Amino acid sequence: MSMAILLSMKPHLMEHWRHALLAVDPTLEIRMFPESGPPEEIEVAVCWTSHDMNELRRYPKLKLIVSMGAGVDHLLRPPGPPPGIPVARLVDTMLTTQMGEWVLLNVLRFHRQDLEYRAQQRDRVWEELEAPVTAARRVGILGLGELGSHAAKLIAGIGFPVGGWSRRPKTVPGVESFHGQDGLDALARRSDILVCLLPLTPETRGVIDARLLALLPRGAFVINGARGGHVVDADLLAALDQGHVAGAALDVFQPEPLPAEHAYWTHPRVVMTPHAASITIPESAAPQVVENIRRVREGRVPINLVDFAAGY
Amino acid sequence: MSMAILLSMKPHLMEHWRHALLAVDPTLEIRMFPESGPPEEIEVAVCWTSHDMNELRRYPKLKLIVSMGAGVDHLLRPPGPPPGIPVARLVDTMLTTQMGEWVLLNVLRFHRQDLEYRAQQRDRVWEELEAPVTAARRVGILGLGELGSHAAKLIAGIGFPVGGWSRRPKTVPGVESFHGQDGLDALARRSDILVCLLPLTPETRGVIDARLLALLPRGAFVINGARGGHVVDADLLAALDQGHVAGAALDVFQPEPLPAEHAYWTHPRVVMTPHAASITIPESAAPQVVENIRRVREGRVPINLVDFAAGY
Repeated sequence: MSMAILLSMKPHLMEHWRHALLAVDPTLEIRMFPESGPPEEIEVAVCWTSHDMNELRRYPKLKLIVSMGAGVDHLLRPPGPPPGIPVARLVDTMLTTQMGEWVLLNVLRFHRQDLEYRAQQRDRVWEELEAPVTAARRVGILGLGELGSHAAKLIAGIGFPVGGWSRRPKTVPGVESFHGQDGLDALARRSDILVCLLPLTPETRGVIDARLLALLPRGAFVINGARGGHVVDADLLAALDQGHVAGAALDVFQPEPLPAEHAYWTHPRVVMTPHAASITIPESAAPQVVENIRRVREGRVPINLVDFAAGY
Repeated sequence: MSMAILLSMKPHLMEHWRHALLAVDPTLEIRMFPESGPPEEIEVAVCWTSHDMNELRRYPKLKLIVSMGAGVDHLLRPPGPPPGIPVARLVDTMLTTQMGEWVLLNVLRFHRQDLEYRAQQRDRVWEELEAPVTAARRVGILGLGELGSHAAKLIAGIGFPVGGWSRRPKTVPGVESFHGQDGLDALARRSDILVCLLPLTPETRGVIDARLLALLPRGAFVINGARGGHVVDADLLAALDQGHVAGAALDVFQPEPLPAEHAYWTHPRVVMTPHAASITIPESAAPQVVENIRRVREGRVPINLVDFAAGY
């Protein structure tokens, strides 16, 4: 009996992933959903949010599920993955690099008054604005995991004063550290630019609400590269319309795709990208998937396992 | 007889500079043009492009001219500063920092397909574009002086492969070095993003012309933070319209302000700022001006002198 890897994602991505995995290990037997073959031959499933978790209960020899991104909130909703099957997520330096770039682009966009300069160009206005002082622009990062700590170090390296918040106390070199509810409020009060890179858990859902936004200095900016569920959209739109928040850069929404009638699309102070801040590149992520296939075959513990109790 | 410092710039800037200089040395006697007082009392003139260089010939005891920015091309045109009077320019870490940020903002803007994503938002299109690979986006910097070498190191630090070109051979850590005419062409051929931070001299005027643009890979981007005279506007516009150049970020123009009818204002692939990439902050630049006032009073050589033979 040949043991096989089941891929389940958009068709063009599946073909891309198949090539990337075979380039690392040409001996792999790869099946592309829904062509799974005999259910007892599937030992690893590599899939993304579109795959029905109930369907994975069909495979009696399944040893590992690989989720195709960094966030795992979709796995925490019912029905959830089959009990007892370990789930690995991708921890990929290219995902981290891309998110860091996307955050930095938007920090610099707001810091360098780019919304104003784009409006000036549209109106053919030649007017030099006040010089921005990097050391006076305080950036606050919510979340100091893989993505958050990388972004924090990157932004601090440019010369911005950076603070970071995490549930448990953490130390990131060059970054002022905050934790707990008091720490969250303290960080918000000193954040001219607030960046969300938290995992989405019951505790962090809706964290960017009217209460937190009111703590930000007037004219602050909000950047969300995590999940749409972190932001209470009505509260953010109200803060933008009141001018309390001067701009927002958003990559994630609820639902996705964002409906065409949503106010974000046309808001002059909102910069949107379509969940594209960090896109998995199969060539970059394939080696860790192959490593995990080898580990489960040899009975060893896989890397990058999801901690379901913590929610990430 | 009291010896005095003459300031000449826009009125609101003069007041700002007076405060910044007095904060460093409260004993300074400061005059604000046109209220110069007795000409024989002026020993240092701190001025910018608007000041008539012939006017400076009125001061018999003038020992130093301080030009209020990094670029000095305006001093190289007739009538020029009075012969024999040393001229210092500003070499200010905050000017360097600001230019680095402006260049990095635009490198990331182009690298992260931001022109496309802004157009998608305008049209309410939700479509993830191909993932950008940092290590495959080659950046070329023309000029490895204070501004160019800082920008090169900053961009290389993010993970982009960076090459730099200078008239004479130079070494910048982590940056591939090019020089001379052959080097210029070689750098252009490998620049997916070409950044100009050269001084404007007779040799560099019009360096970004149809010939150089044709050497760039198709779909390359151009960023000019130096002087408008480096670019042949008609050639850049033609390259943009043909799609050979996919976008341009321009901070400098000829003339400035750019006339309202110029094609750059409305070009969908041009991002403009009004000579605001790097703005002198008096508090940051005042100490070096006071240092130079002390040096000329004590008969010592000033710092940051302009080399008129080299043109910068």
